[in-house]
Amino acid sequence: MSYDRLTPENAAVLFVDHQTGLSNGVQDQSLPEYLTAVTGLVKFAKAFKLPAIITTSASDGPNGPVLPVITQTLPDAPVISRPGEINAWDNAEFVAAVEKTGRKKLIVAGVSTEVCVAFVALSAIKAGYDVYAVIDASGTWNKLVQEVAVARMVQAGIKPITWVAVGAELQGDWRNATGQDLAQIMGEHLPFYGNLAASFFAAKG
Amino acid sequence: MSYDRLTPENAAVLFVDHQTGLSNGVQDQSLPEYLTAVTGLVKFAKAFKLPAIITTSASDGPNGPVLPVITQTLPDAPVISRPGEINAWDNAEFVAAVEKTGRKKLIVAGVSTEVCVAFVALSAIKAGYDVYAVIDASGTWNKLVQEVAVARMVQAGIKPITWVAVGAELQGDWRNATGQDLAQIMGEHLPFYGNLAASFFAAKG
Amino acid sequence: MSYDRLTPENAAVLFVDHQTGLSNGVQDQSLPEYLTAVTGLVKFAKAFKLPAIITTSASDGPNGPVLPVITQTLPDAPVISRPGEINAWDNAEFVAAVEKTGRKKLIVAGVSTEVCVAFVALSAIKAGYDVYAVIDASGTWNKLVQEVAVARMVQAGIKPITWVAVGAELQGDWRNATGQDLAQIMGEHLPFYGNLAASFFAAKG
Amino acid sequence: MSYDRLTPENAAVLFVDHQTGLSNGVQDQSLPEYLTAVTGLVKFAKAFKLPAIITTSASDGPNGPVLPVITQTLPDAPVISRPGEINAWDNAEFVAAVEKTGRKKLIVAGVSTEVCVAFVALSAIKAGYDVYAVIDASGTWNKLVQEVAVARMVQAGIKPITWVAVGAELQGDWRNATGQDLAQIMGEHLPFYGNLAASFFAAKG
Amino acid sequence: MSYDRLTPENAAVLFVDHQTGLSNGVQDQSLPEYLTAVTGLVKFAKAFKLPAIITTSASDGPNGPVLPVITQTLPDAPVISRPGEINAWDNAEFVAAVEKTGRKKLIVAGVSTEVCVAFVALSAIKAGYDVYAVIDASGTWNKLVQEVAVARMVQAGIKPITWVAVGAELQGDWRNATGQDLAQIMGEHLPFYGNLAASFFAAKG
Amino acid sequence: MSYDRLTPENAAVLFVDHQTGLSNGVQDQSLPEYLTAVTGLVKFAKAFKLPAIITTSASDGPNGPVLPVITQTLPDAPVISRPGEINAWDNAEFVAAVEKTGRKKLIVAGVSTEVCVAFVALSAIKAGYDVYAVIDASGTWNKLVQEVAVARMVQAGIKPITWVAVGAELQGDWRNATGQDLAQIMGEHLPFYGNLAASFFAAKG
Amino acid sequence: MSYDRLTPENAAVLFVDHQTGLSNGVQDQSLPEYLTAVTGLVKFAKAFKLPAIITTSASDGPNGPVLPVITQTLPDAPVISRPGEINAWDNAEFVAAVEKTGRKKLIVAGVSTEVCVAFVALSAIKAGYDVYAVIDASGTWNKLVQEVAVARMVQAGIKPITWVAVGAELQGDWRNATGQDLAQIMGEHLPFYGNLAASFFAAKG
Amino acid sequence: MSYDRLTPENAAVLFVDHQTGLSNGVQDQSLPEYLTAVTGLVKFAKAFKLPAIITTSASDGPNGPVLPVITQTLPDAPVISRPGEINAWDNAEFVAAVEKTGRKKLIVAGVSTEVCVAFVALSAIKAGYDVYAVIDASGTWNKLVQEVAVARMVQAGIKPITWVAVGAELQGDWRNATGQDLAQIMGEHLPFYGNLAASFFAAKG
Repeated sequence: MSYDRLTPENAAVLFVDHQTGLSNGVQDQSLPEYLTAVTGLVKFAKAFKLPAIITTSASDGPNGPVLPVITQTLPDAPVISRPGEINAWDNAEFVAAVEKTGRKKLIVAGVSTEVCVAFVALSAIKAGYDVYAVIDASGTWNKLVQEVAVARMVQAGIKPITWVAVGAELQGDWRNATGQDLAQIMGEHLPFYGNLAASFFAAKG
Repeated sequence: MSYDRLTPENAAVLFVDHQTGLSNGVQDQSLPEYLTAVTGLVKFAKAFKLPAIITTSASDGPNGPVLPVITQTLPDAPVISRPGEINAWDNAEFVAAVEKTGRKKLIVAGVSTEVCVAFVALSAIKAGYDVYAVIDASGTWNKLVQEVAVARMVQAGIKPITWVAVGAELQGDWRNATGQDLAQIMGEHLPFYGNLAASFFAAKG
Repeated sequence: MSYDRLTPENAAVLFVDHQTGLSNGVQDQSLPEYLTAVTGLVKFAKAFKLPAIITTSASDGPNGPVLPVITQTLPDAPVISRPGEINAWDNAEFVAAVEKTGRKKLIVAGVSTEVCVAFVALSAIKAGYDVYAVIDASGTWNKLVQEVAVARMVQAGIKPITWVAVGAELQGDWRNATGQDLAQIMGEHLPFYGNLAASFFAAKG
Repeated sequence: MSYDRLTPENAAVLFVDHQTGLSNGVQDQSLPEYLTAVTGLVKFAKAFKLPAIITTSASDGPNGPVLPVITQTLPDAPVISRPGEINAWDNAEFVAAVEKTGRKKLIVAGVSTEVCVAFVALSAIKAGYDVYAVIDASGTWNKLVQEVAVARMVQAGIKPITWVAVGAELQGDWRNATGQDLAQIMGEHLPFYGNLAASFFAAKG
Repeated sequence: MSYDRLTPENAAVLFVDHQTGLSNGVQDQSLPEYLTAVTGLVKFAKAFKLPAIITTSASDGPNGPVLPVITQTLPDAPVISRPGEINAWDNAEFVAAVEKTGRKKLIVAGVSTEVCVAFVALSAIKAGYDVYAVIDASGTWNKLVQEVAVARMVQAGIKPITWVAVGAELQGDWRNATGQDLAQIMGEHLPFYGNLAASFFAAKG
Repeated sequence: MSYDRLTPENAAVLFVDHQTGLSNGVQDQSLPEYLTAVTGLVKFAKAFKLPAIITTSASDGPNGPVLPVITQTLPDAPVISRPGEINAWDNAEFVAAVEKTGRKKLIVAGVSTEVCVAFVALSAIKAGYDVYAVIDASGTWNKLVQEVAVARMVQAGIKPITWVAVGAELQGDWRNATGQDLAQIMGEHLPFYGNLAASFFAAKG
Repeated sequence: MSYDRLTPENAAVLFVDHQTGLSNGVQDQSLPEYLTAVTGLVKFAKAFKLPAIITTSASDGPNGPVLPVITQTLPDAPVISRPGEINAWDNAEFVAAVEKTGRKKLIVAGVSTEVCVAFVALSAIKAGYDVYAVIDASGTWNKLVQEVAVARMVQAGIKPITWVAVGAELQGDWRNATGQDLAQIMGEHLPFYGNLAASFFAAKG
Repeated sequence: MSYDRLTPENAAVLFVDHQTGLSNGVQDQSLPEYLTAVTGLVKFAKAFKLPAIITTSASDGPNGPVLPVITQTLPDAPVISRPGEINAWDNAEFVAAVEKTGRKKLIVAGVSTEVCVAFVALSAIKAGYDVYAVIDASGTWNKLVQEVAVARMVQAGIKPITWVAVGAELQGDWRNATGQDLAQIMGEHLPFYGNLAASFFAAKG
């Protein structure tokens, strides 16, 4: 399995059913940890100008609207409301949006991990994409479901990853143009790093 | 590993030794979580009219009778009592019942995960079936045994899955005929979802 | 601290803000465990004909309606909607309802443990009641909040208890009239016990 | 709270509902840990010739017979079958047996911790006894129930203890007559100690 | 222990050594959970116009500056730099600041729980104050240290509490003037509640 | 990976460094759980008359002698003391003993999992054997080391397994000659099963 | 319970059975965490010139010798070998050594928490001392035993504490003579603090 | 995947970003456990005279200097400061240093596991090296990130390992020249082993 890296030029990011109602079912991590990871990932999408696609399942029903942090940070990302398809890949508009990005690497996150994320990821890898599932920017009903979902996806060749690694791989080198943005995002959402920086600059005087 | 999906037409479900005595040995999850998952899976089998086969090991001995929720929900499913075979696949009647379904995808759950589920799953994959092991609708003696059983099955190409993902993959699209049934089952047995729906309909007024 | 027991004649039960929206914030236990405990407690209230009072906070807002299992099991219990008071004891109608029961022992459960349960319990003990807080039939945002809430209540003399102990203390002797009901409730909601009974009766033949 | 110690002359031990069926509901510890602790406590009772009383709840029903290790190790201990009383202290025969021991310190263990142990302990302390609840030689449905039961008992002045501490406090000095027995029991049931001794004697040559 | 409530008129809040360097030693909760709680508490202090005192230990050394969220949200709160006193109560300027508030109820949080919080709390209760220790808005090196610190403080009569309970007790009634602010703070920092509200308002249309 | 089963005719079992001193370093499970699993595996070896080989590392030094339960249950098994080789496969006498069994399936357990078990297992699979690593009858310094050791072995094609599954796979059918022995071993060392049987036979009367 | 502080002038420290063999039974914390805490406490004893007493139980038997870090750091502390007394307070030489210190505050740590620490602590408080039990510089067989031991000691008025709090309370003010020593000990044994300091001094340049 | 072992002649070790600031973000293990593992690995590098390369990311910024234990133990190892490259493999000087070692097996550890370790490991395996990732001598922000990082690396063929296994595989036979050194390192940093040895030598007299 060769290590062909994520770059701002070869990757797109898919936010699948990060809806307010569904997010309240997330119990494989604490909610502050889940939201921190989702927020970090969204801000990376913006910082690296990644093509982003948002999709929802029945957002006018109990599942609720998209988490505001996603739509507010990425106001130009298409939001594709699926009328019934559980696997977003079954929705032609969604697949067309993915194809339109021209990217062959797909970074996928969502709720729930074993349904909304895994189904899209399995379909995408079958369709020839290189797929990364962002486990901490996704969520599900309990830790066991998360573990099983990761095992199923890894078995199928999907790469498991976490939000900080996504940003670091996209950045590549801190000296690249987005370095400042990346540092700020990590400082805000990886709390130890923000503390570290604040301590450092205080010490420098 | 191609993503050839579970459908109501290509899958059968096997309930292996979900007996009352054995179920009291389940300690890899809390019992309410285990029972919730088993119940959800059983109701999916009914809703999607999946061919279902129930088998027991010495059900007139300490292992006890099948969990009532299974036999009551699926009164027409054959119950194959094995006189001694630990691996249900060694029982000719059981294999015949599986073959009679004509399905090539087998959804397996049971107690215990590392014996009753894993042995059938390993035999079935060897016999050419595509096998899904439902880890949360199965149970075993402690978390370590569960972890090892999942690792052994994944290594052999068996797909690990959880009950909600089974239902979602079978449903495919909420607009399909079984959509209402699925929503009701999830509302009853995935408690956050029932709460979500109740809140939503109250808000709609 | 003398051991003056709970009896069907001296106790009332208070369900505080067990609303569908708030219940989706419960993360100190798994949701199936929380719901199992709430359901068991509600059925005890019915079986022992305890005076029961249900109260809600802004049930026409995001907090959502009362869990259906409560209102359906106890259709005659008053449901007191508080227009703004966080501590139900600040609501005159609620206190009047408590006083009207004539009981000096109050069994309290609700969401969240550290606010809705603790505040009522602290006020009730100050008002001279003997108060029992049912920790597993209550819920809150994470385990730490639960631990702190229990410590605060115990420090103040409130008795911590769990749903099975409430039923057992009320029953006192299995030969009392409600013995059959109690056994059935435990069989349904304390899963190991249901399994035990099923195995036993199968063995008896 | 003065430290008036447990001695072989001032203490009796009560085994409450350590039945085979109920023991299969124990999930606050692993079953091997629970059984190890029960076995250690039973053997201490024998080694120190403590008056011991065994009681059961409906032992001809689903709760099952007493754990064989108890009755086999203490063949002369009375076994008091309660026809219906949940709190053993409500059974006159049981209380008479306790009184007959002439001991004022009661060491209590059983299943479940929050019902069978806590109720007897609360009644005994009310009746003027000094009560020790052996938490690891008792068991209950999950960790939360255990925590709440311990908090309730401690609040009431019952002393929480564990099996090794019971033996050590009874022994007092390794040079007392029972020292050899104690060492053997700990070597067998506190596994690290048995390993330690085996290593030591091997090293001594 | 009577239940004399926290109100905006009788309470002051003390932030003890919430410094960026020290905060990176917090491991009794995840950092996102800790920061969420600190932020919530700080915003409550502002919303309820509580007198607030910030103190630091050697903030020009490795301990680092105060967490920016504290000083930015409460720009007028005095920041008392202690030149060496570990227990802030040993610093005359700090005690004077507390006395100047005229409040007899002190809400204390800080890092670390067992030193910076516990020492101040123990001194304050000795000095006649009614003291609340906010455990989740405090942090320490591991879970065991937290547990021991809570036990020591509870033993001494200090009331353990968590950030949401502080806000709810101060608010008293949602109809009070600060109700909107409180709802917004909870919506932002108790993530399930924000999700709940967003879902609700979407459902209302 | 075909499912070619363990049978009493094709398998041998290797006990690697289950020494009393090393066993006191086991912290990935509780010691009672570890010892229960080791004991069960040893008794299976005896019941199925598996060729068994015991090896030790410096058993006259700090590592200590072999756990007595192993040598006492299998008095005829060769005990190969390695003078220095960490990987038992580097010891010619050990390899000769393995070859002499004529078996191509090796069941390996020991302390520590990541060294003594993994090294033998990796060498054996390289040498053409089919290798099963019994994770719960092995032990190591903490849970993380266990997880990593399992991952490394699974990656290399070694089959992870647990002691109950070993016995069940060897037995195949309860009606085979060893059925009684197997039931007794499980009844003694898988505590829930012993309880189940005792309850059952009591119920049968 | 007044807050009368630990000072270098009013406290003595007792190391009870921190022997190498017994230490290998510690499983309520990881061994690195336990050893770190013991080492920190021993170094505090030296830095503050606290009278220190070391006692052992059968140190020429399986329990092993005292941890070398203790005797090497405190070469002048008396080591009282108890010939058989489990509770060190039963040994006249030990009590005489305690009395000779003239201190009324005793800081106690040891293995195991529920026997060696709790028994001494209970006897000392009965004898009129003010007793602090250092839970993380003590150890026992599992987390449950630790929890029960802490509950028993707190119930009896013994103050639970952890090693860092002991040092901080003794130091009082960083400007006191021992400030440098304290900072060095914390830097070495509270790893985050050492990291913090190293980062700081690097930043200062 | 053949088992071609690590030897002192075929392996080099890479310490990636073990900096003081970054180390304070490690929360997937306790800090004492992390530091113990790092220290053990560093001492192995010295004992086996492995070529070692240290690299840092912005060590004059918030990330801080290298952990002193690394540079002090390996004073001759090159320390390659990367001006911006996140993946050390992107730094020509680093790759040249690796190539200069002439070793084809690379042992990698660092902070954080999913970025600094995984990126180097993925690049190195792509470049034809055989790569071992030392998970306990590495660290990251929480357990979930660790699990995902291990899964990603294992999927790519990188071998997961822990520090004790590295030393044991390098040593091969205790009789090799480095045996004494290895024993001393393990005795100091695998605490149970040091205790074992001390007990043993005391017993030998």
